[in-house]
Amino acid sequence: MHDARKIKVGVLGATGTVGQRFISLLSEHPFFVLHALGASHRSASKLYSHAVTWKQTRPIPSVVRDLVVEECKPECFAECEVIFSGLDADVAGPIEEAFRSAEFAVFSNAKNHRRDPNVPLVVPLVNSSHFAMIPQQRALHSPPLQKGFIVTNANCSTTGVVVPLAALERAFGPIESCMITTMQAISGAGYPGVSSFDILDNVVPYIGGEEEKMEWETLKILGGISESDDGVRSFDMHARQPLRVSAQCNRVPVIEGHTECVSVRFARRPPPSPQQVREALVSFTSDAWTASCPSAPRHTIFVHEEPDRPQPRLDRDYQAGAGISVGRVRQCQVLDIKFVVLANNVAIGAATSSIINAELAVSKGII
Amino acid sequence: MHDARKIKVGVLGATGTVGQRFISLLSEHPFFVLHALGASHRSASKLYSHAVTWKQTRPIPSVVRDLVVEECKPECFAECEVIFSGLDADVAGPIEEAFRSAEFAVFSNAKNHRRDPNVPLVVPLVNSSHFAMIPQQRALHSPPLQKGFIVTNANCSTTGVVVPLAALERAFGPIESCMITTMQAISGAGYPGVSSFDILDNVVPYIGGEEEKMEWETLKILGGISESDDGVRSFDMHARQPLRVSAQCNRVPVIEGHTECVSVRFARRPPPSPQQVREALVSFTSDAWTASCPSAPRHTIFVHEEPDRPQPRLDRDYQAGAGISVGRVRQCQVLDIKFVVLANNVAIGAATSSIINAELAVSKGII
Amino acid sequence: MHDARKIKVGVLGATGTVGQRFISLLSEHPFFVLHALGASHRSASKLYSHAVTWKQTRPIPSVVRDLVVEECKPECFAECEVIFSGLDADVAGPIEEAFRSAEFAVFSNAKNHRRDPNVPLVVPLVNSSHFAMIPQQRALHSPPLQKGFIVTNANCSTTGVVVPLAALERAFGPIESCMITTMQAISGAGYPGVSSFDILDNVVPYIGGEEEKMEWETLKILGGISESDDGVRSFDMHARQPLRVSAQCNRVPVIEGHTECVSVRFARRPPPSPQQVREALVSFTSDAWTASCPSAPRHTIFVHEEPDRPQPRLDRDYQAGAGISVGRVRQCQVLDIKFVVLANNVAIGAATSSIINAELAVSKGII
Amino acid sequence: MHDARKIKVGVLGATGTVGQRFISLLSEHPFFVLHALGASHRSASKLYSHAVTWKQTRPIPSVVRDLVVEECKPECFAECEVIFSGLDADVAGPIEEAFRSAEFAVFSNAKNHRRDPNVPLVVPLVNSSHFAMIPQQRALHSPPLQKGFIVTNANCSTTGVVVPLAALERAFGPIESCMITTMQAISGAGYPGVSSFDILDNVVPYIGGEEEKMEWETLKILGGISESDDGVRSFDMHARQPLRVSAQCNRVPVIEGHTECVSVRFARRPPPSPQQVREALVSFTSDAWTASCPSAPRHTIFVHEEPDRPQPRLDRDYQAGAGISVGRVRQCQVLDIKFVVLANNVAIGAATSSIINAELAVSKGII
Repeated sequence: MHDARKIKVGVLGATGTVGQRFISLLSEHPFFVLHALGASHRSASKLYSHAVTWKQTRPIPSVVRDLVVEECKPECFAECEVIFSGLDADVAGPIEEAFRSAEFAVFSNAKNHRRDPNVPLVVPLVNSSHFAMIPQQRALHSPPLQKGFIVTNANCSTTGVVVPLAALERAFGPIESCMITTMQAISGAGYPGVSSFDILDNVVPYIGGEEEKMEWETLKILGGISESDDGVRSFDMHARQPLRVSAQCNRVPVIEGHTECVSVRFARRPPPSPQQVREALVSFTSDAWTASCPSAPRHTIFVHEEPDRPQPRLDRDYQAGAGISVGRVRQCQVLDIKFVVLANNVAIGAATSSIINAELAVSKGII
Repeated sequence: MHDARKIKVGVLGATGTVGQRFISLLSEHPFFVLHALGASHRSASKLYSHAVTWKQTRPIPSVVRDLVVEECKPECFAECEVIFSGLDADVAGPIEEAFRSAEFAVFSNAKNHRRDPNVPLVVPLVNSSHFAMIPQQRALHSPPLQKGFIVTNANCSTTGVVVPLAALERAFGPIESCMITTMQAISGAGYPGVSSFDILDNVVPYIGGEEEKMEWETLKILGGISESDDGVRSFDMHARQPLRVSAQCNRVPVIEGHTECVSVRFARRPPPSPQQVREALVSFTSDAWTASCPSAPRHTIFVHEEPDRPQPRLDRDYQAGAGISVGRVRQCQVLDIKFVVLANNVAIGAATSSIINAELAVSKGII
Repeated sequence: MHDARKIKVGVLGATGTVGQRFISLLSEHPFFVLHALGASHRSASKLYSHAVTWKQTRPIPSVVRDLVVEECKPECFAECEVIFSGLDADVAGPIEEAFRSAEFAVFSNAKNHRRDPNVPLVVPLVNSSHFAMIPQQRALHSPPLQKGFIVTNANCSTTGVVVPLAALERAFGPIESCMITTMQAISGAGYPGVSSFDILDNVVPYIGGEEEKMEWETLKILGGISESDDGVRSFDMHARQPLRVSAQCNRVPVIEGHTECVSVRFARRPPPSPQQVREALVSFTSDAWTASCPSAPRHTIFVHEEPDRPQPRLDRDYQAGAGISVGRVRQCQVLDIKFVVLANNVAIGAATSSIINAELAVSKGII
Repeated sequence: MHDARKIKVGVLGATGTVGQRFISLLSEHPFFVLHALGASHRSASKLYSHAVTWKQTRPIPSVVRDLVVEECKPECFAECEVIFSGLDADVAGPIEEAFRSAEFAVFSNAKNHRRDPNVPLVVPLVNSSHFAMIPQQRALHSPPLQKGFIVTNANCSTTGVVVPLAALERAFGPIESCMITTMQAISGAGYPGVSSFDILDNVVPYIGGEEEKMEWETLKILGGISESDDGVRSFDMHARQPLRVSAQCNRVPVIEGHTECVSVRFARRPPPSPQQVREALVSFTSDAWTASCPSAPRHTIFVHEEPDRPQPRLDRDYQAGAGISVGRVRQCQVLDIKFVVLANNVAIGAATSSIINAELAVSKGII
């Protein structure tokens, strides 16, 4: 597609870890084109290459090298249609709202609006149906918005686990309970993030707020949308078949790729066998792929047969980090089935999810 | 105690990882004295300092530096009373039996005899009562042994979890189910063990045979000894109140100290509160401490209040690695209570356990 | 190019670390096509995907997945023209000679023939002129060979340093002395290679034979070819202007990418300034690039301006690992100029060098 | 010694990395007793155990657990005689001067006064003779001080190298030039210090200001004190026999222990042999040991014979981190002799040096 016909996009938080990843991914996108970059007051009005401490393994894309960084104000992004937000949670809330009010389509990686009852929390391989909440979100604004909205993606550790859970629920009906122990990469904490003094030769068995996010977000993502008699829509939080989720989150000395040990119990008895589970995971296809989203992984879930996979170093870049790897599917002595999940926390767990969400929105005609 | 009055001990597998740890610990022991070292044919007849590639952070104890390494044959250990075995599993079985037949008290860290129905599998902070099986073990030998026996300690990852489980069962009655996800140090695999290529910037979600060991050993250790009408004793494998254990074992880039995320469900309803669990753990006292074993930790279980502890690098050397650290005691959404355990896999998870077992045997008059 | 017109190549040591890298790189080559794979007797006659423990971050190329592994005998590679050897040094010597005798063009990463006075030791970004020794190498065989020869590439740590040294000698004349301290990645030791117990939270200030290799190979590579009165050619080992090289080699916990701190003293006085050195490095162009070798890097040497670069994690994949990164060019208080070099030890430091050497041979009509 | 007869000491910067190390070491000191702790305004008036994020592998000493943290003002330390400063460089300057003016003996680990022409820069294993500058330092104050003074210790990477250099100069006369490449532990950067994102699977070939410190401090430490005709003393900066030092500093993923590759050229020809160098290093005895300083290492320099030592993980705790380890003494092709040095950057490279300096001052009657 000729650049003139591409959709102009802006990136907020462009100098941060997630912002850098947005820029890397968008610099080669088939129908989005990087047009404006926003960052804090300290960086604004500098050339991007001067403002950023670039920490990606690929060089800074030439298209952004000489862009002048803007402040994160809607008027600085006037020519853009789509905004990707990699802002930190301490500033993301009001800034993203200002962009929505100014009629931008905002795709956010920040946690601020995930619990908003009118904001879809979308893992694009799982619940694109939640885009149906956007009309109500616009209508609540005064005056009602024509084009503006916010869609968030999930926490990086939630993203990894909801994909196989969704595949299993689609095949075998509701999951009743789910235990998750994570081993999360340091890139999930941004930069400078985790001190090397805390993580070299070490495990930190705690990530502030992470377990609560996993336990709550999973319910919103795997739940549906219900509608009251007077037409008000709400996320049902998996209420029709309560799902109990228990998460234990750990930080490990891994740069990229969250590994999660998962065990589930199904409502339906008898539960599926490990082999049935493997087949259901392999055959799961995402709406994003069906909708021909260019960043969606061809294989939503790869199921390893080798006993010692997936491993973050070897498997995190599979399908450019957009797919989910699962291995060690086997019976659990306590619940029904246990397995290991690997998701790339900075790709499908962050920037890639936002981008596929935007691709879905284009495909659905919302943008 | 004057050296002449100390009990002479030998170490088998003296050049290996566990053997080196035995030697470090025994070189300063109040009533055991290192007298003979055994290793493979390749090392035999060399000076220990020439045969070993010493990998401990403390220098080789001067007492063993010039000992001549022996082959692992009973006749080479004639003056010893007690044998500590750090042999690899591929050779430990018949060698340990030969020493038992030759009337040595054998304390083994190898897995070979752990499932033997007449060999106690003793975590010295938990089930010293299992020493009661020794008379039957001796009697089965032909001719019956006077002094020889084998006692094994548990797998390093089992050891960490059975201590708090024992404390909880003592306080609140039987545990019904237990889910464990481990993050295990590379030292658990010996030397050279894990290739750096496999573990730098990585997690390996699999350790061959480890999950089965944890699920089986836990039942033997936490079970009692039952006696049939004709006086035959057997380990009851927690049979009176079945306990389901599900383990997921991972290798992480940590040198020493296994971290384990545990969740339990109690048989008794309602279950104890997190605060009751904390108190039960703190107040748990081991038989080994009560019996004044010099290597037993004064505090069997330390309970951390900070949310991000225990951590292997900071907590693995607590009480010379002989105690167990627990943290993050809280409610579980799926089972009842979840928490994090840290145990030093090469101290209480290996050599220290064998040594305390020997101290217990001395205290009980079995040696 | 249609596959039928591609040059068929075989890989020896195909299941090893270097062999896997050869296969990854050759699976997408514009004019070489993978045709046969050789490994030890243990792997022979298995499907490659069954024989190999694949440790690359990209999946096994589909083209080799179902190839049957052969023994490393010339008759099994009859249809191939070119042989890439990733064999271990303990077996490489006679096997490579057998392939040469059978008229194969052998490009070896092994050290065995590097010191052979008739075998070119070629870093393809530096001394492609050494291919001129091949006729003499063939003529020495009885009967003289028509097509067979062996060309080796250099040790991975030598490769990194000779490229900037060659650039500097080309611009400023002979270097008189050179001090090098390396910080080498664990992948340089193959698999399983370095035990994690030796390298986590550690540096090992010794790599057996490495310093001698660097000190010797540098002289052969940077030297020319002299010819005696009776037409016998020999590598002159930088003899016309003696160069003293002192290397100190260390292993560090890095997966890929050797970092080297280098300081040089020039023969010519006054020596060049740091800025002149930077310019000479940037403008250096390799014969391989001039000869349009498809795997040659467009920029032979990248010179970083930021004070903290190059870094192995960020810079090792620059130009697919085929280029050399230099940074921190500055004056030395003892010699003249010091700087930091980064080279990808498994790309340009190993398989990529062999492949570019083969491309050079094709370009020169030697194949 | 009864506590009442011990010398009361205070620690400034008590919550920081170096401060914590001071506290660990001083809590068991034979004649210093911890009496007051100072930190920033933010920590002041809290209990130490609440103010600190304790990151040491030993628990907080009970003696300080309930001390109330003071602000870093002399009046809060009235009962102390000696002050140890672990303050950050951005605040250390004026605070340390205020304590000196208030007649405290200040032993500082900060860099602020190292270049002061009247402040001794003392590595206690090397140049205790520099204490001779203290009378002049006191006299310059207006009014002249009776008891107050400042003594600093060296940068952690300087400390490691000057000890063997001093030993070599004592045995073989002046060193003419010295090349040093360091591989420094992350603990040298304090807490949080180095981001894990920068150092996992990586080397950073740059530490701001470090090379300049090493090149300058070495001259001051190894130089003498000269006296002008009018009795003014000055550090001669090794001026009588100029010494050129060239340092290249790298950060590596090691927690504790700086490894340094060193090569030296002696003024005297012919230079000593490697064996003579080994003997000179082994036989070097420090003034601190001769003066019976309790924290001084019995063996100032340990010389390893194994080719792969010293290693930071195995050797950094030798003699409680107070001694220096050297290995791989061999000839250099460019200078004369090269070797590897390991020094514990947080022990002899920081807090332990200050403490031995204070012990020396007591021994010399300066306190």
